[in-house]
Amino acid sequence: MNIGLDMMGGDYAPLEALKGISLFREDYPNTELSLFGDKDEILRLIAEHNINAENCAIVATSQVIDMHEHPTKAMREKPDSSISVGFKYLATGKVDTFISAGNTGAMMVGSLFSIKAIDGISRPTIGAYMPRENGKLGWLLDVGINSDCKPENLVQFAILGSLFAEQVLNIKNPTVGLINIGEEEGKGNILAQAAYPLLKEEQSINFIGNIEGRDVFLDKADVMVCEGFTGNVILKLAESIYPLIQNRGIKDEFFDRFEFEQYGGVPVLGVNKPVVIGHGISHAKSFKNMLILAQTMIEKDLMGKIKERFSQSES
Amino acid sequence: MNIGLDMMGGDYAPLEALKGISLFREDYPNTELSLFGDKDEILRLIAEHNINAENCAIVATSQVIDMHEHPTKAMREKPDSSISVGFKYLATGKVDTFISAGNTGAMMVGSLFSIKAIDGISRPTIGAYMPRENGKLGWLLDVGINSDCKPENLVQFAILGSLFAEQVLNIKNPTVGLINIGEEEGKGNILAQAAYPLLKEEQSINFIGNIEGRDVFLDKADVMVCEGFTGNVILKLAESIYPLIQNRGIKDEFFDRFEFEQYGGVPVLGVNKPVVIGHGISHAKSFKNMLILAQTMIEKDLMGKIKERFSQSES
Repeated sequence: MNIGLDMMGGDYAPLEALKGISLFREDYPNTELSLFGDKDEILRLIAEHNINAENCAIVATSQVIDMHEHPTKAMREKPDSSISVGFKYLATGKVDTFISAGNTGAMMVGSLFSIKAIDGISRPTIGAYMPRENGKLGWLLDVGINSDCKPENLVQFAILGSLFAEQVLNIKNPTVGLINIGEEEGKGNILAQAAYPLLKEEQSINFIGNIEGRDVFLDKADVMVCEGFTGNVILKLAESIYPLIQNRGIKDEFFDRFEFEQYGGVPVLGVNKPVVIGHGISHAKSFKNMLILAQTMIEKDLMGKIKERFSQSES
Repeated sequence: MNIGLDMMGGDYAPLEALKGISLFREDYPNTELSLFGDKDEILRLIAEHNINAENCAIVATSQVIDMHEHPTKAMREKPDSSISVGFKYLATGKVDTFISAGNTGAMMVGSLFSIKAIDGISRPTIGAYMPRENGKLGWLLDVGINSDCKPENLVQFAILGSLFAEQVLNIKNPTVGLINIGEEEGKGNILAQAAYPLLKEEQSINFIGNIEGRDVFLDKADVMVCEGFTGNVILKLAESIYPLIQNRGIKDEFFDRFEFEQYGGVPVLGVNKPVVIGHGISHAKSFKNMLILAQTMIEKDLMGKIKERFSQSES
């Protein structure tokens, strides 16, 4: 297994990425890593901070896609950027997965155009963890990639989310809830009304019906599906709670779990190979968690299981 | 001024409604009230709890619309219910405003069919208060009545919300933000993309651009507009925070303001007369605040100002 990591992505790269590798090494000394970025700078920081960089190969790249650059334009104009080269390595099998805390749009462009959607999946998606008081995590998707959706997209999100919850979150037969504005079937906007019967019919998921805004932080559904507009608003609202808690000087174990950075990154679900996108503000612990997530997706062959599931649905 | 109050609406009616009247009386001894409900029961509770019921006229009604009844069906089949009779009184000018913590759907049916939308307003709306750390309140609309919207609807919500914020929340030249999933113009789903330029062109509002989920509890925009699906999810998610805070034993002045019951009820904006809808779980303080809200809307002639604004736009 070879994990590709963009060393130039994120506000605190490459140092925090290197520190994350060190943390990862404590548990996983043998996984091979390919580090994409400014070779001199990486070597300098490895020496300066006494980083454990065993089993790491540095792939020198000369360009960086900044956080606010236009994704498609940047990917076209910066072919030697760490993200562009990382995706070339992933597409050609030189690495098995690619991780970046850099420009999310560029990561999506790379995922969709160089790795491509799995046959049968019309809209790859990104989800987010949602903390629950009982210590569990819920999985909300889509959180912003697909802001206008068809009912069938929500069904695919439900299937992808269920496979992720099962394989990566270790939840058996995960429950799926449709984010809606009422509990009963027939409630909601046109999209939710149309998606409900399709979700109900879908045999491969454990659909439990509608859930509401109030259920997001409760242990109501393991997988929560909606279009990316609502999902993004929920995610950003949830992310805003931790700074408020901190401002008020509140210390609480449960609300500490609203610090989203700890979750590392999230996978792009529905593309052919494992891609993990991290928060721009990622620190060492996030990078460590992204490395673990990428490794887990490969070990569990999540993409293989998704492919299998969607090849069945075509037959 | 005569305020009509449904005594049978809400989980703790009629006793909490009566207690709310007592609280209201401390500040407003002279406002005339018309109480719709079970006369014997109301008189019994007034005596038993030593309620100050001066300047109150009881309008005896024999039926009650339950919280979970189908609104249109219930309104048709229960013409002598407290809500049905209340709307008859409001429509014929026997009361100047009508308040209920009962069946929200029935209150909307009454508002739309017996009071009717103001000329020029295609979709009356309901908003919700959003607490801010600086002690202010934001106003979010729509929160669930209009789950599928056209861009023009959002512009009308922005105008209605601005007038409400100005007249009732006493905010001069209130800022308006469009709930979206990115900061820049051009971001968002089809609806938000189409609404942005219309909001920008609208001269009567102080549009400041897009706001995101993370801005809802910050002092970013006084009035926050979105379709009712997203708005309802935001509201119910926001409402879920206070019970979590309580479960964790956290005491905090700011988070105490997430107890939505304290805000009493919300007005139906865009109909010809002031209607206030309360939470089913309303207690005395909520009823007091709903009475104050109804009185304020009449005193400020909010409906008159809305009519004036929309008659201008037609000319």
